[in-house]
Amino acid sequence: MSEFLNQLDAPELEAMGIHGWPYGYSDQVRFHELDPLNHVNNASYLSWFENIRVRYLQDYGLSSYGSRDDDPQVVVRQQTADYLAPMFKDERYVVTARTRLLKPSSLIMDYAVHSGGAVRATCSAVLVSLEQDGKARRPHKDAAIKRILARDGAERA
Amino acid sequence: MSEFLNQLDAPELEAMGIHGWPYGYSDQVRFHELDPLNHVNNASYLSWFENIRVRYLQDYGLSSYGSRDDDPQVVVRQQTADYLAPMFKDERYVVTARTRLLKPSSLIMDYAVHSGGAVRATCSAVLVSLEQDGKARRPHKDAAIKRILARDGAERA
Amino acid sequence: MSEFLNQLDAPELEAMGIHGWPYGYSDQVRFHELDPLNHVNNASYLSWFENIRVRYLQDYGLSSYGSRDDDPQVVVRQQTADYLAPMFKDERYVVTARTRLLKPSSLIMDYAVHSGGAVRATCSAVLVSLEQDGKARRPHKDAAIKRILARDGAERA
Amino acid sequence: MSEFLNQLDAPELEAMGIHGWPYGYSDQVRFHELDPLNHVNNASYLSWFENIRVRYLQDYGLSSYGSRDDDPQVVVRQQTADYLAPMFKDERYVVTARTRLLKPSSLIMDYAVHSGGAVRATCSAVLVSLEQDGKARRPHKDAAIKRILARDGAERA
Repeated sequence: MSEFLNQLDAPELEAMGIHGWPYGYSDQVRFHELDPLNHVNNASYLSWFENIRVRYLQDYGLSSYGSRDDDPQVVVRQQTADYLAPMFKDERYVVTARTRLLKPSSLIMDYAVHSGGAVRATCSAVLVSLEQDGKARRPHKDAAIKRILARDGAERA
Repeated sequence: MSEFLNQLDAPELEAMGIHGWPYGYSDQVRFHELDPLNHVNNASYLSWFENIRVRYLQDYGLSSYGSRDDDPQVVVRQQTADYLAPMFKDERYVVTARTRLLKPSSLIMDYAVHSGGAVRATCSAVLVSLEQDGKARRPHKDAAIKRILARDGAERA
Repeated sequence: MSEFLNQLDAPELEAMGIHGWPYGYSDQVRFHELDPLNHVNNASYLSWFENIRVRYLQDYGLSSYGSRDDDPQVVVRQQTADYLAPMFKDERYVVTARTRLLKPSSLIMDYAVHSGGAVRATCSAVLVSLEQDGKARRPHKDAAIKRILARDGAERA
Repeated sequence: MSEFLNQLDAPELEAMGIHGWPYGYSDQVRFHELDPLNHVNNASYLSWFENIRVRYLQDYGLSSYGSRDDDPQVVVRQQTADYLAPMFKDERYVVTARTRLLKPSSLIMDYAVHSGGAVRATCSAVLVSLEQDGKARRPHKDAAIKRILARDGAERA
């Protein structure tokens, strides 16, 4: 499988002054993400958070985003985004992700966008692990739970 | 100015069984809004809520989305989306909007997506009215305040 | 199955002064389709052409966009878009589609965007009909061929 | 101004086996770029070509994408995309760009997407240089012409 482009781990993030995040990547604002106010459009941030979430869920072993019966479908049930400062054309940024709270078949993740030494946007998402039918709950895999507790220091409920 | 395509007012929404909303429009899921799970992508809902918000703010007189000095810039400071049930290809739906709480230079709006007699997603957004510099707060226009109170029955704070 | 929202047939298009097109729908520019030049972004037009193509292929019986073995997968092999005049916020428009040339397992379709009595953009697309494996060619269904010849007056090759 | 993330110059592209291109960057397929067929959506390729075009036009000095009177507005008049092979989730790729033909106030650019030793998609675009009014033609700047001829070996007409 292909590696995650421009991925950043905890020590690399620390070296950039981004503390308390185990997982991230760097990227740059694209022209098509801007709206007529010359700002990054609100919906584009959600695509960034989705991008890191999909990679995180695969890397930590929560889902392979396949459709085999032994693979859970992890869906977003709720998300809250805070837009703290506008972002502009060509701006370089770092997106980070971590799990804050881990329940048997759900979790709460936090995301943030960092640029120029400040946080531009944050997001908190409630994710639910389902069977392939998209209905019944499916408990997380043990290996994934262990990784989340070890790497992210997530609280358990 | 062009009218809002497929716009629905309170009586029309009532007739469809959608109660308590003064402002809406109908639309249909597009192919490019679907993701590999065959569901509408989470970010697409935010574009629908943005679509109705921009029309609402113009129709109620809160902003003309121009860049003249006498026109406020209304930006999203925070939004929370609840994804209650997945949506599928070609699905017909109605998006609704209303103001819940009105403050001197900000407001809280609610949005919902209705389909097949149920609510598929909801959203609550905190909007802030700014000067064209994007920094200083700018109070709402009186005419807009009167319309919001009369049409939406918004609470005032 | 849900009907196609705001669909327009040949007589309705004729009544709007749009001649020579058997199939269309009306829509309106959304805020998120605009770019920092305040124009509709070039890629958004392709989503409009995709939107009408998917509905056309279903309505004419070329593909049901399912994944059953008796259903072809119709893919775009090439497309050329001409951007004749910029389009702006809230602009109302009509998208039209027709098949120009029909071959045993491929076809050439034309698309256009009409607004204010003029054509704003055109597109020509080469589509190929494939088996579900996405590789072998699959001939069009007879019923679909008959409809295309009857409704669109397509040339046959 | 920020540098172009993951930019690749001619020697770096050569070292990757990508010959005849002076300008490129590497990237990776995002989840939101996929459609229900699990392929990269056709419109997403256009966003990639737009992304490299905007950077190229700035780097070569054809436009700064500002709105000052001494800055031309460079717009796409026509583009043709060839989709040669589907692209999938997480796939790593390289996008390249060059000018093929240079006229006094227009140019023809070629783009390509490379992955796994093959070309997945190509595009050819006719660009026109306009005054800020978006109407009158505006000749290219001499410095930009010199760079295009020197770096890309473009034909002149």
